[in-house]
Amino acid sequence: MKSVIRVEVPPQSYDIAIAPGSLDDIGVWMSRLKLGKKVLLVSNPAIFRRYGERAIGALKLVGYQVSHCTLPAGERYKTLKSIQKIHDAALQNRLERSSTMVALGGGVIGDMTGFAAATWLRGINVVQVPTSLLAMVDAAIGGKTGVNHPQGKNLIGAFHQPRFVLIDPHVLQTLPPRELRAGMAEVIKYGVIWDAELFAKLESTKRLDQRRYLDEELLSFILSCSCQAKADVVSQDEKEAGLRAILNYGHTIGHAVESLTGYKVVNHGEAVAIGMVAAGQIAVELQMWTSPEAERQKALIEKAGLPTQLPPGLDIDAIIDTLQTDKKVKDGKVRFILPTQIGEVTITDQVPADVIRQVLSDKL
Amino acid sequence: MKSVIRVEVPPQSYDIAIAPGSLDDIGVWMSRLKLGKKVLLVSNPAIFRRYGERAIGALKLVGYQVSHCTLPAGERYKTLKSIQKIHDAALQNRLERSSTMVALGGGVIGDMTGFAAATWLRGINVVQVPTSLLAMVDAAIGGKTGVNHPQGKNLIGAFHQPRFVLIDPHVLQTLPPRELRAGMAEVIKYGVIWDAELFAKLESTKRLDQRRYLDEELLSFILSCSCQAKADVVSQDEKEAGLRAILNYGHTIGHAVESLTGYKVVNHGEAVAIGMVAAGQIAVELQMWTSPEAERQKALIEKAGLPTQLPPGLDIDAIIDTLQTDKKVKDGKVRFILPTQIGEVTITDQVPADVIRQVLSDKL
Ligand SMILES: NC(=O)c1ccc[n+]([C@@H]2O[C@H](COP(=O)([O-])OP(=O)(O)OC[C@H]3O[C@@H](n4cnc5c(N)ncnc54)[C@H](O)[C@@H]3O)[C@@H](O)[C@H]2O)c1
Ligand SMILES: NC(=O)c1ccc[n+]([C@@H]2O[C@H](COP(=O)([O-])OP(=O)(O)OC[C@H]3O[C@@H](n4cnc5c(N)ncnc54)[C@H](O)[C@@H]3O)[C@@H](O)[C@H]2O)c1
Ligand SMILES: [Zn+2]
Ligand SMILES: [Zn+2]
Repeated sequence: MKSVIRVEVPPQSYDIAIAPGSLDDIGVWMSRLKLGKKVLLVSNPAIFRRYGERAIGALKLVGYQVSHCTLPAGERYKTLKSIQKIHDAALQNRLERSSTMVALGGGVIGDMTGFAAATWLRGINVVQVPTSLLAMVDAAIGGKTGVNHPQGKNLIGAFHQPRFVLIDPHVLQTLPPRELRAGMAEVIKYGVIWDAELFAKLESTKRLDQRRYLDEELLSFILSCSCQAKADVVSQDEKEAGLRAILNYGHTIGHAVESLTGYKVVNHGEAVAIGMVAAGQIAVELQMWTSPEAERQKALIEKAGLPTQLPPGLDIDAIIDTLQTDKKVKDGKVRFILPTQIGEVTITDQVPADVIRQVLSDKL
Repeated sequence: MKSVIRVEVPPQSYDIAIAPGSLDDIGVWMSRLKLGKKVLLVSNPAIFRRYGERAIGALKLVGYQVSHCTLPAGERYKTLKSIQKIHDAALQNRLERSSTMVALGGGVIGDMTGFAAATWLRGINVVQVPTSLLAMVDAAIGGKTGVNHPQGKNLIGAFHQPRFVLIDPHVLQTLPPRELRAGMAEVIKYGVIWDAELFAKLESTKRLDQRRYLDEELLSFILSCSCQAKADVVSQDEKEAGLRAILNYGHTIGHAVESLTGYKVVNHGEAVAIGMVAAGQIAVELQMWTSPEAERQKALIEKAGLPTQLPPGLDIDAIIDTLQTDKKVKDGKVRFILPTQIGEVTITDQVPADVIRQVLSDKL
């Protein structure tokens, strides 16, 4: 089963193709785009070892001149220094304005490659080939690119839409299970904020915590619903003037938990899982959401092998303080995305601090 | 005399205001834009010493919270490292998405501040307050921002349009004469490529080589014609898909001359002057332009105190070689902008190498 989803961001809209085995056809997919001959493939050593040669072979087959560069794996290398390395490779291989960078990897590689492409010769083409579930359903789509500042995540960056996103679900076979679950948190997010049918499908699935419980059809369904949700939102609000903020569901408290635990104890998806449970409870407290639906969300998150409680020892006042310094705060007001029913959320900055405190201490 | 010119680049078109003494009104001008409260002013030490406090005072007067940062003067500091310094200041002063960077300086400061703004929080506002003639008529307008790669000028960058450009001609009083002449080369360029009336006005002026020969009215006329020319071209072709290339008139050979002399012997404007004379001669050789008009151009360039001949000792084969490596080369063909009559040019990649060689050896 293959599907193609359109992201409408004029003047340069693009497709997301979800097709099992498509890594070996990447050249054919890309040749429709009439890009220049030169391609720089960017990856990390582990992913390149597994999939690099296959991708390069498929690109060369249709006539591209392909060079590559790899960057060390891990969020801590998502820096301007890595961008300089990509730029050096771009220079060395004489990339031109019509040339293309191909990001083969998770969100870290995708964000960096996108930013390097955004800033080389004032913007060259980038094609995203996400290999983690999180990158497939989230990071690779929508044009947010960037790196971290020593003092804050994703502070440096640019909007730069890819020319194309190619998803080959087969590569998930080698993704570590904890990374799969991290991506599943975002999938559940789309179910809650946008797509009740996706939510129901996830509910009806026995297990969600490992790749082998997801058959090919289910996986394709999950991927296409999630990508469609992200594409819909981005198409309606490319630069996050309004609606796009709903993609931050679960991320308000999630980010605070991540940053207070030094991005080590819990990973991003786990933090988002905890954040969604908290946001759900807050919505219940504020009588915006029903308790049974909040329970359904919690059960689904548990089934995906994701945490629903704060990691032990985390100080609640510290969380509340951290919320205030979030980059999405405006005029000192913390913005929450709260569910009103499964498949629908609302945005509000009217959540009293004592409700947050109460939910974090009693209900989590 | 004050004038306002519109640059039409939807979704965010903007004004260029040319108004003597306006540095002291910058706050008032900016307050129409409904920007956030925080402003980071970026400059270099020499310019900041002269004009920084006045600008900051005028911004505070209308309620902005203003911080500032200065970067060492000079093209060799136009690097990613300087961008990191601006980012550090942005972090330290907690700039938000609605905040604004104000570039107070020549093209170097303008390009860097624009790029820092383009890449902070994926793009915040930038207001350009150009202080050199070149920045006023060229660099501050059109959204090209960026820095140099150790191995090439302006290779790293992004398109990021300013929200507003404020030109106070009074600040040109302190601009070194050689810098004024460099800017005058671009002014003459607009006369040749776009505005025959500007060309005639320049011709009818006795001297163009120093600020004191330009009275306030003439200077305003020169600035507004030049800005209008750049605005017209950018409005029709923001991302340089076609027409915008005409702004590179004189720059093909100009860039080769600059780079072969190590950006030291001749400055950018001088190189462009030489490049315009060469392009004019090439057009005459190809029977696209008349000899008398080429002579008029040359006379005007001389009157502006700009060179019309290659610096001694420059190897002509080296120039021809360098043309081939220019970033605007496509499929090995060098693109020239050639005049057909004063106020009009055409773009061609059909200039035989022996014509270039002949013009450079005999006619220059
Ligand atoms: N741009 C956006 O809109 C957006 C959205 C969400 C997240 N992000 C960013 O994405 C990043 C997180 O992405 P991530 O979760 O993919 O992390 P990641 O890129 O670090 O990948 C996680 C780990 O999985 C490995 N891996 C990836 N694919 C694999 C495969 N098929 N087989 C074996 N190993 C594989 C990677 O090498 C890495 O070690 C963060 O930097 C985050 O800021 C960006
Ligand atoms: N973005 C664009 O579209 C564009 C177009 C043309 C040039 N540029 C860039 O602009 C740069 C050149 O700009 P420039 O010629 O203004 O050089 P510059 O910024 O280096 O300024 C030249 C010198 O004049 C000084 N100066 C500027 N204004 C002054 C004033 N009012 N009084 C006293 N001293 C003053 C500066 O401190 C500097 O020493 C280059 O880096 C070039 O790449 C960009
Ligand atoms: Zn996320
Ligand atoms: Zn120029």
